Amino acid sequence: MHSPALPHVPRLHAYTPGLQPSGPGWTKLNTNECPYPPSPAVAAAIRREVGEDGASLRLYPNPRSSPLRAAVAALHGLREENVCIGNGSDDILNLLVRCYCGGAAPAGFMLPSYSLYPVLVGIQDGRSTVIEFGRDLRLPLPAIAGSGAAIFFLTSPNAPTGVTFGNAEIEQLLQSFTGLLVVDEAYAPFAREHAVPLLARHPRLVVVRTLSKAYALAGIRVGYALADPAVIDLLDRVRDSYNVSRLSQAAALAALGDPDYYRAVIARVCATRDRAIADCTARGWFTYPSGSNFIFTEPSDARGGSGPAVAKSAYDFLCARKVLVRHFPSHALTAPFLRISVGTDDEMLVLQNTLEAWLKHA
Amino acid sequence: MHSPALPHVPRLHAYTPGLQPSGPGWTKLNTNECPYPPSPAVAAAIRREVGEDGASLRLYPNPRSSPLRAAVAALHGLREENVCIGNGSDDILNLLVRCYCGGAAPAGFMLPSYSLYPVLVGIQDGRSTVIEFGRDLRLPLPAIAGSGAAIFFLTSPNAPTGVTFGNAEIEQLLQSFTGLLVVDEAYAPFAREHAVPLLARHPRLVVVRTLSKAYALAGIRVGYALADPAVIDLLDRVRDSYNVSRLSQAAALAALGDPDYYRAVIARVCATRDRAIADCTARGWFTYPSGSNFIFTEPSDARGGSGPAVAKSAYDFLCARKVLVRHFPSHALTAPFLRISVGTDDEMLVLQNTLEAWLKHA
Repeated sequence: MHSPALPHVPRLHAYTPGLQPSGPGWTKLNTNECPYPPSPAVAAAIRREVGEDGASLRLYPNPRSSPLRAAVAALHGLREENVCIGNGSDDILNLLVRCYCGGAAPAGFMLPSYSLYPVLVGIQDGRSTVIEFGRDLRLPLPAIAGSGAAIFFLTSPNAPTGVTFGNAEIEQLLQSFTGLLVVDEAYAPFAREHAVPLLARHPRLVVVRTLSKAYALAGIRVGYALADPAVIDLLDRVRDSYNVSRLSQAAALAALGDPDYYRAVIARVCATRDRAIADCTARGWFTYPSGSNFIFTEPSDARGGSGPAVAKSAYDFLCARKVLVRHFPSHALTAPFLRISVGTDDEMLVLQNTLEAWLKHA
Repeated sequence: MHSPALPHVPRLHAYTPGLQPSGPGWTKLNTNECPYPPSPAVAAAIRREVGEDGASLRLYPNPRSSPLRAAVAALHGLREENVCIGNGSDDILNLLVRCYCGGAAPAGFMLPSYSLYPVLVGIQDGRSTVIEFGRDLRLPLPAIAGSGAAIFFLTSPNAPTGVTFGNAEIEQLLQSFTGLLVVDEAYAPFAREHAVPLLARHPRLVVVRTLSKAYALAGIRVGYALADPAVIDLLDRVRDSYNVSRLSQAAALAALGDPDYYRAVIARVCATRDRAIADCTARGWFTYPSGSNFIFTEPSDARGGSGPAVAKSAYDFLCARKVLVRHFPSHALTAPFLRISVGTDDEMLVLQNTLEAWLKHA
């Protein structure tokens, strides 16, 4: 009956986003959203763009998001030609796959890392080169350099572990790996180091950022790529000509214009995160250092046991009490852990109290 | 120095959007935007979503745009499983190309029609099967049926001519063409007939709509596909998981909830359009019948001459006087014509007066 789609399409599995519960009463620590609202300048900018009657919305947005490119460039000390704006950083990652990954050009990434990469490679009907982390989460530089990947995605700070890779290592990688290296820095504002300074001397480096996490704007879908103008030029050839709405452009511009507000938000999130790591560590739970707005901790039960079943037990206990975190059971390295987004101090108190209750119950 | 992109990417030419002049004083009749603002319910819904401090924007949007799917389904008497929401209808067209067009599966379309199709096929590194219209703009059914296209895009009402293809013809086509037929109905709300009623008995039909034109919301980027659930399921596998922002979902929902407002807007645009066609025809200019919010007219100068140079002369004269229309010089059928978006009655008066001045001047 149906016209046949390309053979790989019916076999694809869409990316699984974290649960978005609609009812009240949830402590939502599962999708790494910011627990604080965006800068007040954002709401004001949206109201200004909408005006009295929304008349500006009848017009197409700026097709290149030019004012936003200029603001991003200024923020990072780069030029507008170094910037491409996406409908979320997922849009940017998709454009990169479409430009660099095909039949003879595999895309590489670490496992575990952001689970969208294999989804995007699958849509492209491309090949993936997957390199496994050990529990120490050290970057296996020779393995990446020898992977034969045309494009390699490195999530730093890593998801879901939160571990940051330093610029010394990334620069070493750029010297041995000959493909395009994408450092996916969704969480970098919460880290001590980021790869942007390397762009000046590495035309095969792309840094990807998002406004979803540190800027508290997951709802507006804006992310961007920073790269050599030749790479940006390719992304623009593949990008949808009106990929970012007028309201999203206005909101993002306003957010970038209020760095003081966000410095305070980030400091607060990092302080809460560091206390949460200390709490888990004090309880005897192995917890990775985090350069992100989440923690990755290995629960152990009252008898000191840990592992996938223990993590699952803690996850289920939390979920039944409307505390939503994330458990990734499908990989041996992640299965004994929980990934917990950093919430407000009150939310983290609910979390810790519920974990204590689980300890007594388990 | 650079990592090599896929070989087809550096050869791509991005879609050329219509000019978006930023200064004041322009009569902008070049991108088929609605000359009237969206329903007042839209601005109210955005303000409600933003709230006092924009706090909801820190959260990801509904990944499936579920409430919007339900509203679109109700509008067309279909079920939610028949609907996929896109970041503009261009997003939907891109998803269709990614699902159905590849090396052995060419995409077909008419020339002239929406110039985005070859751009999307190029990005996919696919093949195009192009079928040329004659000046009578009759649909060459046997040529389409024999085109071997896996997916065929039919713009109806056609762009840039405005001519609508009837359901009798489309149904005939569905009986002979064996691929997926996409009827791209961006302008259908301005036409007398549309293909939605055919969906019930044709699982190889996809109807694509946008809120950019009749709903006066080009700035928010929302479009949708209506199709058999099996087709929608494929689009969802390829779609970005958060492709539509919270504000765009809220705006679109509000617009669909105010049909009375839009009935009046559409009636007004159609009345202005029909007067513009009558004015051009009275001047002796051949003008196609239009089921859209633009007219496609063949200017003739004071000596009765027409053709590409005459159209170019009129275009340049208008542009120099800040009246922006569109001229497509690259195809023999379109080169003697101008495409003029329907503006307000005042804007159309400026247009007609400027055309009269050109006639005296040319």
